[in-house]
Amino acid sequence: MFDLNAYLSEKIQRINTALESILKVSDRPDRILEAMTYSLMAEGKRIRSVLCLAAAEAVGGDLEEVLPAACALEMVHTYSLIHDDLPAIDDDAMRRGQPTCHTAFDEATAILAGDALLTLAFQTLSSIEIGNDQQAARLHVIQLISHAAGYCGMIQGQMLDIGSEGNQLTLNELKSLHRLKTGALIEVSLRCGAELAGANSSQIQMLESYAQHIGLAFQVTDDILNVAGDPDIMGKAVGTDKLRHKSTYPSLLGLEESKNFARKLTEDALQALESFTQNAEPLRAIARYLVDRKK
Amino acid sequence: MFDLNAYLSEKIQRINTALESILKVSDRPDRILEAMTYSLMAEGKRIRSVLCLAAAEAVGGDLEEVLPAACALEMVHTYSLIHDDLPAIDDDAMRRGQPTCHTAFDEATAILAGDALLTLAFQTLSSIEIGNDQQAARLHVIQLISHAAGYCGMIQGQMLDIGSEGNQLTLNELKSLHRLKTGALIEVSLRCGAELAGANSSQIQMLESYAQHIGLAFQVTDDILNVAGDPDIMGKAVGTDKLRHKSTYPSLLGLEESKNFARKLTEDALQALESFTQNAEPLRAIARYLVDRKK
Repeated sequence: MFDLNAYLSEKIQRINTALESILKVSDRPDRILEAMTYSLMAEGKRIRSVLCLAAAEAVGGDLEEVLPAACALEMVHTYSLIHDDLPAIDDDAMRRGQPTCHTAFDEATAILAGDALLTLAFQTLSSIEIGNDQQAARLHVIQLISHAAGYCGMIQGQMLDIGSEGNQLTLNELKSLHRLKTGALIEVSLRCGAELAGANSSQIQMLESYAQHIGLAFQVTDDILNVAGDPDIMGKAVGTDKLRHKSTYPSLLGLEESKNFARKLTEDALQALESFTQNAEPLRAIARYLVDRKK
Repeated sequence: MFDLNAYLSEKIQRINTALESILKVSDRPDRILEAMTYSLMAEGKRIRSVLCLAAAEAVGGDLEEVLPAACALEMVHTYSLIHDDLPAIDDDAMRRGQPTCHTAFDEATAILAGDALLTLAFQTLSSIEIGNDQQAARLHVIQLISHAAGYCGMIQGQMLDIGSEGNQLTLNELKSLHRLKTGALIEVSLRCGAELAGANSSQIQMLESYAQHIGLAFQVTDDILNVAGDPDIMGKAVGTDKLRHKSTYPSLLGLEESKNFARKLTEDALQALESFTQNAEPLRAIARYLVDRKK
Protein backbone atom coordinates (compact mmCIF):
# COMPACT_ATOMS: atom_id res chain seq x y z
CA MET A 1 0.00 0.00 0.00
CA PHE A 2 1.53 3.31 -1.11
CA ASP A 3 2.03 5.77 1.78
CA LEU A 4 1.15 9.17 0.31
CA ASN A 5 1.73 11.07 3.53
CA ALA A 6 5.28 9.81 3.80
CA TYR A 7 5.83 10.52 0.12
CA LEU A 8 4.49 14.07 0.34
CA SER A 9 6.40 14.92 3.47
CA GLU A 10 9.68 13.67 1.99
CA LYS A 11 9.13 15.58 -1.25
CA ILE A 12 7.96 18.76 0.48
CA GLN A 13 11.03 18.59 2.72
CA ARG A 14 13.26 18.26 -0.31
CA ILE A 15 11.60 21.18 -2.08
CA ASN A 16 11.70 23.38 1.01
CA THR A 17 15.39 22.68 1.54
CA ALA A 18 16.08 23.61 -2.08
CA LEU A 19 13.97 26.78 -1.81
CA GLU A 20 15.70 27.80 1.40
CA SER A 21 19.12 27.36 -0.11
CA ILE A 22 18.12 29.57 -3.06
CA LEU A 23 16.82 32.28 -0.72
CA LYS A 24 19.79 32.20 1.64
CA VAL A 25 22.01 34.60 -0.20
CA SER A 26 22.80 37.12 2.48
CA ASP A 27 22.87 37.41 6.24
CA ARG A 28 22.11 41.09 6.36
CA PRO A 29 18.58 42.18 7.22
CA ASP A 30 16.72 42.72 3.98
CA ARG A 31 13.04 43.57 3.91
CA ILE A 32 12.33 42.35 0.39
CA LEU A 33 14.01 38.99 0.99
CA GLU A 34 12.14 38.74 4.27
CA ALA A 35 8.80 39.27 2.53
CA MET A 36 9.69 36.79 -0.24
CA THR A 37 10.71 34.20 2.35
CA TYR A 38 7.63 34.87 4.48
CA SER A 39 5.30 34.01 1.62
CA LEU A 40 7.35 31.36 -0.16
CA MET A 41 8.16 29.37 2.98
CA ALA A 42 4.66 29.58 4.51
CA GLU A 43 3.20 26.14 4.97
CA GLY A 44 1.77 25.14 1.62
CA LYS A 45 0.68 22.01 -0.16
CA ARG A 46 3.47 22.39 -2.75
CA ILE A 47 1.15 20.70 -5.24
CA ARG A 48 2.85 22.06 -8.32
CA SER A 49 6.39 21.17 -7.36
CA VAL A 50 5.37 17.74 -6.04
CA LEU A 51 3.54 17.04 -9.32
CA CYS A 52 6.65 18.11 -11.21
CA LEU A 53 8.82 15.66 -9.25
CA ALA A 54 6.22 12.89 -9.38
CA ALA A 55 5.92 13.24 -13.17
CA ALA A 56 9.68 12.90 -13.48
CA GLU A 57 9.53 9.82 -11.25
CA ALA A 58 6.70 8.33 -13.29
CA VAL A 59 8.97 8.23 -16.33
CA GLY A 60 12.02 7.10 -14.35
CA GLY A 61 13.96 10.38 -14.35
CA ASP A 62 16.60 11.88 -12.06
CA LEU A 63 14.94 14.20 -9.54
CA GLU A 64 18.03 16.38 -9.07
CA GLU A 65 17.72 17.56 -12.68
CA VAL A 66 14.10 18.52 -12.07
CA LEU A 67 14.43 20.25 -8.71
CA PRO A 68 15.21 23.77 -10.04
CA ALA A 69 12.04 23.64 -12.16
CA ALA A 70 10.03 22.43 -9.16
CA CYS A 71 11.35 25.39 -7.13
CA ALA A 72 10.60 27.82 -9.95
CA LEU A 73 7.01 26.58 -10.13
CA GLU A 74 6.51 27.24 -6.41
CA MET A 75 7.93 30.74 -6.84
CA VAL A 76 5.59 31.49 -9.72
CA HIS A 77 2.63 30.13 -7.77
CA THR A 78 3.52 32.13 -4.64
CA TYR A 79 4.02 35.34 -6.61
CA SER A 80 0.55 34.88 -8.10
CA LEU A 81 -0.96 34.40 -4.64
CA ILE A 82 0.74 37.52 -3.26
CA HIS A 83 -0.53 39.66 -6.14
CA ASP A 84 -4.02 38.11 -6.15
CA ASP A 85 -4.35 38.87 -2.43
CA LEU A 86 -3.58 42.59 -2.91
CA PRO A 87 -6.26 45.14 -1.97
CA ALA A 88 -6.74 46.11 -5.62
CA ILE A 89 -7.46 42.50 -6.61
CA ASP A 90 -8.99 40.02 -4.12
CA ASP A 91 -8.18 42.00 -0.97
CA ASP A 92 -7.57 38.91 1.17
CA ALA A 93 -6.22 39.21 4.72
CA MET A 94 -5.25 35.58 5.41
CA ARG A 95 -3.42 32.96 3.35
CA ARG A 96 -1.82 29.67 4.32
CA GLY A 97 -2.75 30.27 7.95
CA GLN A 98 -0.98 33.61 8.28
CA PRO A 99 -1.65 37.23 7.34
CA THR A 100 -1.20 37.86 3.60
CA CYS A 101 2.05 39.48 2.48
CA HIS A 102 0.66 43.02 2.16
CA THR A 103 -0.96 42.67 5.61
CA ALA A 104 2.21 41.43 7.30
CA PHE A 105 4.46 43.91 5.46
CA ASP A 106 2.86 46.62 3.33
CA GLU A 107 1.38 46.93 -0.11
CA ALA A 108 4.50 48.25 -1.87
CA THR A 109 6.64 45.48 -0.38
CA ALA A 110 4.08 42.85 -1.37
CA ILE A 111 3.95 44.06 -4.97
CA LEU A 112 7.74 44.01 -5.19
CA ALA A 113 8.09 40.69 -3.34
CA GLY A 114 5.74 39.12 -5.89
CA ASP A 115 7.74 40.66 -8.73
CA ALA A 116 10.95 39.41 -7.16
CA LEU A 117 9.68 35.83 -6.81
CA LEU A 118 8.52 35.76 -10.43
CA THR A 119 11.92 37.05 -11.52
CA LEU A 120 13.75 34.61 -9.25
CA ALA A 121 11.87 31.73 -10.87
CA PHE A 122 13.51 32.52 -14.19
CA GLN A 123 16.86 33.14 -12.54
CA THR A 124 16.61 29.69 -10.99
CA LEU A 125 15.65 28.07 -14.29
CA SER A 126 18.61 29.65 -16.06
CA SER A 127 21.18 28.91 -13.34
CA ILE A 128 24.55 28.29 -14.85
CA GLU A 129 25.19 24.77 -13.64
CA ILE A 130 23.51 23.09 -16.59
CA GLY A 131 25.16 20.51 -18.78
CA ASN A 132 25.09 21.11 -22.55
CA ASP A 133 22.63 18.28 -23.00
CA GLN A 134 20.12 19.97 -20.70
CA GLN A 135 20.24 23.45 -22.23
CA ALA A 136 17.59 22.90 -24.87
CA ALA A 137 15.26 21.27 -22.33
CA ARG A 138 15.77 24.15 -19.87
CA LEU A 139 15.01 26.77 -22.50
CA HIS A 140 11.86 24.86 -23.41
CA VAL A 141 10.85 24.72 -19.75
CA ILE A 142 11.30 28.50 -19.49
CA GLN A 143 9.13 28.82 -22.58
CA LEU A 144 6.45 26.53 -21.16
CA ILE A 145 6.33 28.17 -17.72
CA SER A 146 6.36 31.74 -19.05
CA HIS A 147 3.58 30.87 -21.47
CA ALA A 148 1.46 29.16 -18.79
CA ALA A 149 2.00 31.97 -16.28
CA GLY A 150 1.57 34.82 -18.74
CA TYR A 151 -1.25 36.74 -20.35
CA CYS A 152 -2.32 33.74 -22.43
CA GLY A 153 -2.53 31.60 -19.27
CA MET A 154 -2.69 32.35 -15.56
CA ILE A 155 -2.88 36.14 -15.89
CA GLN A 156 -5.63 35.88 -18.47
CA GLY A 157 -7.50 33.60 -16.04
CA GLN A 158 -7.10 36.13 -13.26
CA MET A 159 -8.44 38.89 -15.52
CA LEU A 160 -11.46 36.74 -16.41
CA ASP A 161 -11.97 35.99 -12.73
CA ILE A 162 -11.98 39.70 -11.84
CA GLY A 163 -14.28 40.50 -14.76
CA SER A 164 -16.72 37.74 -13.86
CA GLU A 165 -17.37 38.72 -10.23
CA GLY A 166 -21.06 39.30 -9.85
CA ASN A 167 -21.87 37.70 -13.24
CA GLN A 168 -23.20 34.18 -13.42
CA LEU A 169 -20.99 32.18 -15.78
CA THR A 170 -21.99 29.10 -17.72
CA LEU A 171 -20.29 25.82 -16.86
CA ASN A 172 -18.11 26.06 -19.97
CA GLU A 173 -17.06 29.62 -19.16
CA LEU A 174 -16.16 28.56 -15.64
CA LYS A 175 -14.12 25.60 -16.90
CA SER A 176 -12.23 27.76 -19.32
CA LEU A 177 -11.56 30.37 -16.62
CA HIS A 178 -10.08 27.69 -14.35
CA ARG A 179 -8.16 26.01 -17.11
CA LEU A 180 -6.35 29.34 -17.49
CA LYS A 181 -6.17 30.51 -13.89
CA THR A 182 -5.00 27.34 -12.17
CA GLY A 183 -5.00 24.60 -14.79
CA ALA A 184 -2.29 26.02 -17.02
CA LEU A 185 0.36 26.07 -14.30
CA ILE A 186 -0.62 22.64 -12.98
CA GLU A 187 -0.44 21.16 -16.47
CA VAL A 188 2.93 22.73 -17.09
CA SER A 189 4.24 21.45 -13.75
CA LEU A 190 3.75 17.87 -14.88
CA ARG A 191 4.99 18.58 -18.36
CA CYS A 192 8.21 20.22 -17.15
CA GLY A 193 8.96 17.31 -14.84
CA ALA A 194 8.31 14.83 -17.62
CA GLU A 195 10.34 16.71 -20.25
CA LEU A 196 13.33 17.28 -18.00
CA ALA A 197 13.26 13.60 -17.10
CA GLY A 198 13.36 12.64 -20.76
CA ALA A 199 9.77 11.43 -21.27
CA ASN A 200 8.74 10.42 -24.78
CA SER A 201 5.91 12.18 -26.56
CA SER A 202 3.32 9.51 -25.84
CA GLN A 203 4.11 9.67 -22.12
CA ILE A 204 3.88 13.47 -22.24
CA GLN A 205 0.49 13.24 -23.92
CA MET A 206 -0.88 10.90 -21.25
CA LEU A 207 0.53 13.04 -18.46
CA GLU A 208 -1.10 16.10 -20.02
CA SER A 209 -4.45 14.34 -20.01
CA TYR A 210 -3.91 13.39 -16.35
CA ALA A 211 -2.94 17.01 -15.62
CA GLN A 212 -6.01 18.49 -17.28
CA HIS A 213 -8.32 16.27 -15.28
CA ILE A 214 -6.67 16.76 -11.89
CA GLY A 215 -6.28 20.49 -12.54
CA LEU A 216 -10.00 20.81 -12.93
CA ALA A 217 -10.72 18.39 -10.07
CA PHE A 218 -8.46 20.51 -7.87
CA GLN A 219 -10.46 23.65 -8.65
CA VAL A 220 -13.83 21.96 -8.21
CA THR A 221 -12.63 20.76 -4.80
CA ASP A 222 -11.41 24.26 -3.92
CA ASP A 223 -14.89 25.57 -4.67
CA ILE A 224 -16.48 22.78 -2.59
CA LEU A 225 -14.17 23.58 0.33
CA ASN A 226 -15.09 27.25 0.07
CA VAL A 227 -18.70 26.19 0.74
CA ALA A 228 -18.29 23.20 3.01
CA GLY A 229 -14.73 23.36 4.38
CA ASP A 230 -13.54 24.03 7.92
CA PRO A 231 -11.83 27.44 8.18
CA ASP A 232 -9.67 26.22 11.09
CA ILE A 233 -8.26 23.39 9.01
CA MET A 234 -7.94 25.52 5.89
CA GLY A 235 -6.16 28.49 7.44
CA LYS A 236 -8.41 30.91 5.58
CA ALA A 237 -12.03 32.04 5.56
CA VAL A 238 -14.78 30.03 3.86
CA GLY A 239 -17.99 31.29 2.25
CA THR A 240 -16.04 34.08 0.56
CA ASP A 241 -17.01 33.02 -2.98
CA LYS A 242 -20.69 33.36 -2.16
CA LEU A 243 -20.16 36.75 -0.53
CA ARG A 244 -18.45 37.92 -3.71
CA HIS A 245 -21.20 36.40 -5.88
CA LYS A 246 -18.57 34.35 -7.68
CA SER A 247 -19.62 31.63 -10.08
CA THR A 248 -18.46 28.30 -8.67
CA TYR A 249 -19.17 24.64 -9.35
CA PRO A 250 -21.44 24.36 -6.30
CA SER A 251 -23.35 27.46 -7.39
CA LEU A 252 -23.81 26.04 -10.90
CA LEU A 253 -24.17 22.32 -10.19
CA GLY A 254 -25.09 22.13 -6.52
CA LEU A 255 -22.83 20.65 -3.84
CA GLU A 256 -23.54 16.95 -4.42
CA GLU A 257 -23.25 17.14 -8.19
CA SER A 258 -19.96 19.03 -7.79
CA LYS A 259 -18.62 16.20 -5.64
CA ASN A 260 -19.67 13.68 -8.30
CA PHE A 261 -18.01 15.79 -10.97
CA ALA A 262 -14.74 15.89 -8.99
CA ARG A 263 -14.86 12.12 -8.56
CA LYS A 264 -15.48 11.58 -12.28
CA LEU A 265 -12.52 13.83 -13.13
CA THR A 266 -10.31 11.82 -10.79
CA GLU A 267 -11.34 8.56 -12.47
CA ASP A 268 -10.50 10.02 -15.87
CA ALA A 269 -7.13 11.18 -14.54
CA LEU A 270 -6.36 7.67 -13.26
CA GLN A 271 -7.47 6.24 -16.60
CA ALA A 272 -4.87 8.39 -18.38
CA LEU A 273 -2.12 6.73 -16.32
CA GLU A 274 -3.25 3.18 -17.06
CA SER A 275 -0.23 2.22 -19.13
CA PHE A 276 2.24 3.58 -16.58
CA THR A 277 4.16 1.31 -14.17
CA GLN A 278 4.33 1.37 -10.37
CA ASN A 279 6.48 4.50 -10.78
CA ALA A 280 3.26 6.42 -11.35
CA GLU A 281 1.80 5.31 -8.01
CA PRO A 282 2.52 8.73 -6.44
CA LEU A 283 0.61 10.47 -9.24
CA ARG A 284 -2.32 8.09 -8.75
CA ALA A 285 -2.38 8.70 -5.01
CA ILE A 286 -2.13 12.48 -5.52
CA ALA A 287 -5.15 12.43 -7.86
CA ARG A 288 -7.22 10.73 -5.13
CA TYR A 289 -5.86 13.03 -2.43
CA LEU A 290 -6.65 16.21 -4.37
CA VAL A 291 -10.39 15.57 -4.21
CA ASP A 292 -10.41 14.06 -0.70
CA ARG A 293 -8.39 16.83 0.94
CA LYS A 294 -9.81 19.01 3.70
CA LYS A 295 -7.70 22.09 2.89
CA MET B 1 29.62 63.41 -38.67
CA PHE B 2 27.50 60.68 -37.08
CA ASP B 3 23.75 61.40 -37.24
CA LEU B 4 22.40 60.17 -33.89
CA ASN B 5 18.83 61.22 -34.59
CA ALA B 6 18.68 59.15 -37.75
CA TYR B 7 20.33 56.24 -35.93
CA LEU B 8 17.93 56.38 -32.99
CA SER B 9 14.86 56.69 -35.12
CA GLU B 10 15.87 53.72 -37.29
CA LYS B 11 16.63 51.57 -34.24
CA ILE B 12 13.52 52.62 -32.34
CA GLN B 13 11.46 51.81 -35.43
CA ARG B 14 13.03 48.38 -35.63
CA ILE B 15 12.42 47.68 -31.94
CA ASN B 16 8.84 48.93 -32.09
CA THR B 17 8.09 46.75 -35.09
CA ALA B 18 9.49 43.73 -33.26
CA LEU B 19 7.53 44.55 -30.09
CA GLU B 20 4.32 45.01 -32.07
CA SER B 21 4.73 41.67 -33.78
CA ILE B 22 5.21 39.95 -30.40
CA LEU B 23 2.09 41.60 -28.99
CA LYS B 24 -0.10 40.91 -32.03
CA VAL B 25 -1.27 37.48 -31.05
CA SER B 26 -5.01 37.87 -31.27
CA ASP B 27 -7.62 40.06 -32.87
CA ARG B 28 -10.19 39.66 -30.14
CA PRO B 29 -10.63 42.48 -27.63
CA ASP B 30 -8.50 41.69 -24.63
CA ARG B 31 -8.16 44.10 -21.74
CA ILE B 32 -4.86 42.78 -20.41
CA LEU B 33 -3.19 42.86 -23.84
CA GLU B 34 -4.63 46.34 -24.35
CA ALA B 35 -3.04 47.55 -21.10
CA MET B 36 0.29 45.88 -21.91
CA THR B 37 0.30 47.45 -25.37
CA TYR B 38 -0.76 50.85 -24.01
CA SER B 39 2.29 51.03 -21.74
CA LEU B 40 4.82 49.16 -23.85
CA MET B 41 4.09 51.07 -27.05
CA ALA B 42 3.86 54.52 -25.43
CA GLU B 43 6.47 56.84 -26.86
CA GLY B 44 9.69 56.08 -25.01
CA LYS B 45 13.40 56.65 -25.44
CA ARG B 46 14.02 52.89 -25.76
CA ILE B 47 17.43 53.52 -24.18
CA ARG B 48 17.95 49.96 -22.96
CA SER B 49 17.08 48.24 -26.20
CA VAL B 50 19.02 50.75 -28.29
CA LEU B 51 22.07 50.25 -26.04
CA CYS B 52 21.69 46.50 -26.47
CA LEU B 53 21.69 46.80 -30.26
CA ALA B 54 24.47 49.41 -30.27
CA ALA B 55 26.69 47.18 -28.11
CA ALA B 56 26.16 44.32 -30.56
CA GLU B 57 27.06 46.68 -33.41
CA ALA B 58 30.17 47.89 -31.58
CA VAL B 59 31.58 44.36 -31.67
CA GLY B 60 30.39 43.67 -35.22
CA GLY B 61 27.47 41.34 -34.41
CA ASP B 62 24.27 40.42 -36.21
CA LEU B 63 21.39 42.55 -34.90
CA GLU B 64 18.72 39.97 -35.72
CA GLU B 65 20.21 37.62 -33.11
CA VAL B 66 20.03 40.40 -30.52
CA LEU B 67 16.56 41.75 -31.23
CA PRO B 68 14.62 39.37 -28.91
CA ALA B 69 16.84 40.42 -26.00
CA ALA B 70 16.36 44.09 -26.88
CA CYS B 71 12.59 43.56 -26.83
CA ALA B 72 12.74 41.68 -23.52
CA LEU B 73 14.70 44.56 -21.94
CA GLU B 74 11.99 47.03 -22.95
CA MET B 75 9.33 44.76 -21.49
CA VAL B 76 11.19 44.47 -18.19
CA HIS B 77 11.71 48.23 -18.10
CA THR B 78 8.05 48.96 -18.87
CA TYR B 79 6.80 46.48 -16.26
CA SER B 80 8.97 48.23 -13.66
CA LEU B 81 7.53 51.61 -14.62
CA ILE B 82 3.93 50.36 -14.42
CA HIS B 83 4.50 48.91 -10.94
CA ASP B 84 6.54 51.88 -9.68
CA ASP B 85 3.74 54.23 -10.75
CA LEU B 86 1.11 52.33 -8.70
CA PRO B 87 -0.67 54.18 -5.88
CA ALA B 88 1.05 51.99 -3.26
CA ILE B 89 4.50 52.91 -4.59
CA ASP B 90 5.13 56.26 -6.33
CA ASP B 91 1.48 57.08 -7.09
CA ASP B 92 2.25 58.82 -10.37
CA ALA B 93 -0.54 59.94 -12.70
CA MET B 94 1.44 60.67 -15.88
CA ARG B 95 4.18 58.77 -17.70
CA ARG B 96 5.58 59.12 -21.21
CA GLY B 97 3.10 61.91 -21.93
CA GLN B 98 -0.01 59.87 -21.14
CA PRO B 99 -1.91 58.75 -18.03
CA THR B 100 -0.13 55.94 -16.20
CA CYS B 101 -1.45 52.40 -16.71
CA HIS B 102 -3.49 52.26 -13.48
CA THR B 103 -4.98 55.68 -14.29
CA ALA B 104 -5.94 54.74 -17.85
CA PHE B 105 -7.19 51.28 -16.86
CA ASP B 106 -7.44 50.35 -13.17
CA GLU B 107 -5.11 49.21 -10.45
CA ALA B 108 -5.76 45.48 -10.77
CA THR B 109 -5.22 45.59 -14.52
CA ALA B 110 -2.01 47.60 -14.09
CA ILE B 111 -0.59 45.11 -11.57
CA LEU B 112 -1.39 42.22 -13.89
CA ALA B 113 -0.20 44.03 -17.04
CA GLY B 114 3.15 44.61 -15.34
CA ASP B 115 3.30 40.96 -14.32
CA ALA B 116 2.41 39.91 -17.85
CA LEU B 117 5.13 42.06 -19.44
CA LEU B 118 7.76 40.69 -17.07
CA THR B 119 6.65 37.16 -17.90
CA LEU B 120 6.53 37.91 -21.63
CA ALA B 121 10.15 39.10 -21.47
CA PHE B 122 11.24 35.60 -20.47
CA GLN B 123 8.89 33.99 -22.96
CA THR B 124 10.50 36.11 -25.67
CA LEU B 125 14.02 35.22 -24.52
CA SER B 126 13.22 31.51 -24.59
CA SER B 127 11.39 31.52 -27.92
CA ILE B 128 11.93 28.30 -29.74
CA GLU B 129 13.58 29.59 -32.90
CA ILE B 130 17.11 29.44 -31.50
CA GLY B 131 19.96 27.57 -33.13
CA ASN B 132 21.92 25.11 -30.96
CA ASP B 133 24.92 27.43 -30.95
CA GLN B 134 22.87 30.22 -29.40
CA GLN B 135 21.24 28.21 -26.59
CA ALA B 136 23.99 28.67 -24.02
CA ALA B 137 24.17 32.40 -24.75
CA ARG B 138 20.39 32.75 -24.45
CA LEU B 139 20.32 30.96 -21.10
CA HIS B 140 23.08 33.23 -19.88
CA VAL B 141 21.16 36.29 -21.04
CA ILE B 142 18.10 35.06 -19.10
CA GLN B 143 20.35 34.64 -16.08
CA LEU B 144 21.83 38.13 -16.48
CA ILE B 145 18.49 39.89 -16.99
CA SER B 146 16.70 38.05 -14.18
CA HIS B 147 19.57 38.84 -11.83
CA ALA B 148 19.68 42.52 -12.80
CA ALA B 149 15.90 42.90 -12.57
CA GLY B 150 15.47 40.91 -9.38
CA TYR B 151 15.79 41.43 -5.67
CA CYS B 152 19.58 41.76 -5.88
CA GLY B 153 19.22 44.47 -8.54
CA MET B 154 16.37 46.67 -9.71
CA ILE B 155 13.84 45.56 -7.09
CA GLN B 156 16.36 46.05 -4.29
CA GLY B 157 16.98 49.55 -5.67
CA GLN B 158 13.27 50.28 -5.67
CA MET B 159 13.01 49.10 -2.03
CA LEU B 160 15.91 51.35 -1.04
CA ASP B 161 14.28 54.21 -2.91
CA ILE B 162 11.00 53.73 -1.04
CA GLY B 163 12.83 53.41 2.28
CA SER B 164 14.88 56.51 1.71
CA GLU B 165 12.06 58.97 1.03
CA GLY B 166 12.32 61.75 3.55
CA ASN B 167 15.85 60.68 4.63
CA GLN B 168 18.88 62.53 3.37
CA LEU B 169 21.28 59.98 1.83
CA THR B 170 25.01 60.36 1.46
CA LEU B 171 26.45 60.57 -2.05
CA ASN B 172 27.66 56.98 -1.83
CA GLU B 173 24.29 55.72 -0.67
CA LEU B 174 22.62 57.55 -3.53
CA LYS B 175 25.07 56.12 -6.06
CA SER B 176 24.53 52.61 -4.80
CA LEU B 177 20.75 53.06 -4.85
CA HIS B 178 20.90 54.15 -8.51
CA ARG B 179 23.38 51.50 -9.46
CA LEU B 180 20.72 49.00 -8.36
CA LYS B 181 17.55 50.78 -9.43
CA THR B 182 18.49 51.88 -12.94
CA GLY B 183 22.17 51.01 -13.40
CA ALA B 184 21.82 47.23 -13.20
CA LEU B 185 19.39 46.97 -16.12
CA ILE B 186 21.33 49.46 -18.25
CA GLU B 187 24.57 47.57 -17.65
CA VAL B 188 22.95 44.28 -18.51
CA SER B 189 21.45 45.76 -21.69
CA LEU B 190 24.92 46.41 -23.07
CA ARG B 191 26.27 43.14 -21.79
CA CYS B 192 23.48 41.08 -23.38
CA GLY B 193 23.97 42.78 -26.73
CA ALA B 194 27.71 42.22 -26.56
CA GLU B 195 27.47 38.57 -25.46
CA LEU B 196 24.86 37.61 -28.03
CA ALA B 197 27.02 39.26 -30.69
CA GLY B 198 30.01 37.17 -29.64
CA ALA B 199 32.12 39.82 -27.89
CA ASN B 200 35.34 38.68 -26.23
CA SER B 201 35.90 39.17 -22.49
CA SER B 202 38.07 42.26 -22.87
CA GLN B 203 35.40 43.93 -25.00
CA ILE B 204 32.75 42.98 -22.47
CA GLN B 205 34.82 44.48 -19.67
CA MET B 206 35.20 47.80 -21.50
CA LEU B 207 31.52 47.90 -22.36
CA GLU B 208 30.68 47.27 -18.71
CA SER B 209 32.81 50.22 -17.68
CA TYR B 210 31.07 52.36 -20.32
CA ALA B 211 27.72 51.09 -19.04
CA GLN B 212 28.44 51.89 -15.42
CA HIS B 213 29.40 55.45 -16.26
CA ILE B 214 26.50 56.20 -18.57
CA GLY B 215 24.09 54.47 -16.20
CA LEU B 216 25.02 56.87 -13.46
CA ALA B 217 25.17 59.85 -15.85
CA PHE B 218 21.67 58.96 -16.99
CA GLN B 219 20.37 59.06 -13.42
CA VAL B 220 22.18 62.29 -12.54
CA THR B 221 20.61 63.86 -15.64
CA ASP B 222 17.19 62.54 -14.66
CA ASP B 223 17.58 64.27 -11.30
CA ILE B 224 18.71 67.49 -12.98
CA LEU B 225 15.71 67.40 -15.33
CA ASN B 226 13.40 66.89 -12.35
CA VAL B 227 14.69 70.23 -11.04
CA ALA B 228 15.34 72.20 -14.21
CA GLY B 229 13.45 70.38 -16.99
CA ASP B 230 10.44 71.52 -18.99
CA PRO B 231 7.33 69.47 -18.08
CA ASP B 232 5.84 70.05 -21.55
CA ILE B 233 8.88 68.51 -23.23
CA MET B 234 9.20 65.74 -20.66
CA GLY B 235 5.60 64.57 -20.66
CA LYS B 236 5.53 64.41 -16.86
CA ALA B 237 5.66 66.74 -13.87
CA VAL B 238 8.90 68.28 -12.57
CA GLY B 239 9.80 69.25 -9.03
CA THR B 240 8.32 65.99 -7.73
CA ASP B 241 11.58 64.80 -6.13
CA LYS B 242 11.76 67.93 -3.98
CA LEU B 243 8.11 67.62 -2.97
CA ARG B 244 8.82 64.07 -1.84
CA HIS B 245 12.01 65.14 -0.02
CA LYS B 246 13.95 62.67 -2.13
CA SER B 247 17.72 62.68 -2.03
CA THR B 248 19.00 63.64 -5.48
CA TYR B 249 22.30 64.73 -6.99
CA PRO B 250 21.17 68.38 -7.17
CA SER B 251 20.05 68.24 -3.52
CA LEU B 252 23.43 66.81 -2.46
CA LEU B 253 25.82 68.53 -4.88
CA GLY B 254 23.88 71.54 -6.13
CA LEU B 255 22.69 71.95 -9.72
CA GLU B 256 25.95 73.16 -11.30
CA GLU B 257 28.12 70.54 -9.61
CA SER B 258 25.64 67.87 -10.70
CA LYS B 259 26.01 69.00 -14.30
CA ASN B 260 29.81 68.81 -13.96
CA PHE B 261 29.51 65.35 -12.45
CA ALA B 262 27.36 64.15 -15.37
CA ARG B 263 29.89 65.57 -17.84
CA LYS B 264 32.78 63.87 -16.05
CA LEU B 265 30.92 60.53 -16.11
CA THR B 266 30.36 60.94 -19.84
CA GLU B 267 34.06 61.56 -20.43
CA ASP B 268 34.91 58.42 -18.47
CA ALA B 269 32.38 56.44 -20.49
CA LEU B 270 33.95 57.65 -23.75
CA GLN B 271 37.38 56.79 -22.39
CA ALA B 272 36.28 53.18 -21.86
CA LEU B 273 35.50 52.90 -25.59
CA GLU B 274 38.84 54.27 -26.73
CA SER B 275 40.09 51.02 -28.26
CA PHE B 276 36.86 50.43 -30.19
CA THR B 277 36.52 51.17 -33.91
CA GLN B 278 34.06 53.37 -35.77
CA ASN B 279 31.46 50.68 -34.99
CA ALA B 280 31.21 52.14 -31.50
CA GLU B 281 30.31 55.60 -32.83
CA PRO B 282 26.62 55.08 -31.89
CA LEU B 283 27.59 54.28 -28.30
CA ARG B 284 29.77 57.39 -28.15
CA ALA B 285 27.00 59.58 -29.48
CA ILE B 286 24.48 58.03 -27.06
CA ALA B 287 26.75 58.80 -24.10
CA ARG B 288 26.80 62.48 -25.10
CA TYR B 289 23.09 62.53 -25.81
CA LEU B 290 22.16 61.03 -22.44
CA VAL B 291 23.48 64.03 -20.55
CA ASP B 292 22.39 66.66 -23.11
CA ARG B 293 18.81 65.42 -23.44
CA LYS B 294 15.85 67.57 -22.48
CA LYS B 295 13.55 64.66 -21.54
